[in-house]
Amino acid sequence: MSAIDVYLDNNAEYAVRFSKGSLSAPPARRIAVVTCMDARLETGALLGLEAGDAHVIRNAGGVVTDDVIRSLTISQRLLKTREIMLIHHTDCGMLTFTDAELRDSIEKETGVRPPFAMEAFAHLEKSVHQSIARIHASPFVPHKDAVRGFVCEIETARLREVT
Amino acid sequence: MSAIDVYLDNNAEYAVRFSKGSLSAPPARRIAVVTCMDARLETGALLGLEAGDAHVIRNAGGVVTDDVIRSLTISQRLLKTREIMLIHHTDCGMLTFTDAELRDSIEKETGVRPPFAMEAFAHLEKSVHQSIARIHASPFVPHKDAVRGFVCEIETARLREVT
Repeated sequence: MSAIDVYLDNNAEYAVRFSKGSLSAPPARRIAVVTCMDARLETGALLGLEAGDAHVIRNAGGVVTDDVIRSLTISQRLLKTREIMLIHHTDCGMLTFTDAELRDSIEKETGVRPPFAMEAFAHLEKSVHQSIARIHASPFVPHKDAVRGFVCEIETARLREVT
Repeated sequence: MSAIDVYLDNNAEYAVRFSKGSLSAPPARRIAVVTCMDARLETGALLGLEAGDAHVIRNAGGVVTDDVIRSLTISQRLLKTREIMLIHHTDCGMLTFTDAELRDSIEKETGVRPPFAMEAFAHLEKSVHQSIARIHASPFVPHKDAVRGFVCEIETARLREVT
């Protein structure tokens, strides 16, 4: 059975019990969470998210790329969020390679060198600082008073703030 | 109390009960889910995700941008996922504006025109098709045999496949 079919079965069960059809699009807690796609970060459980409360933006690394700036721009300008919670994590895949290595191997296999950065990083706290700096440098994200960065210890699920 | 502080409290409670520290980075179900940042899509509940099972990639719209291609490339090449489940949803914010409108208003306010597409769309099923086409067009995502697209009815939480 494919994973997609498992999730479709789960969804059919969930939909039977579902009763939150009246929630509106702007997040009730007016927050956007930015974090890694990592399978071990089950964001709902990790943060106690309830449906309707928070935007959740996730990519490889939880790195603030142009696409995250695009999402934050829409989140704040059209859907009225005001806080940004950025979460990277220990044992992240992005710590295990360099951009040059991955782009070299992809070029060797496909003949095409990726025309974008892979966003690998060598140091967790520095990466959090870099992502926060990118938010502050963006002219498109209007609300920057409540941007805070964290590292999640994947072994304990505990968040610690990066200051 | 800020939303971030609420989530830090929730996280501290969760960490006390947490006992999954031995999960490894490659997703157990070998799948990457791509969906919207929308607050009403609580992905864990919606799909019955358990920690360690699936990569989850989310942005404004659940649109396959270059950053999603970057994440899928890393997901498949380094962390061995094989299926891709793409989910857009009804009542999406991306249906409520056009790229030109949003870029015009941002330029008017900030003086800077965003140098990237905002990825607004006018038709849900067409947008799912467009995102799937971008995956198939990418030379960097190696495994494309199990890419399936869905629309989530936000009113009922039910997924329907886009064929």
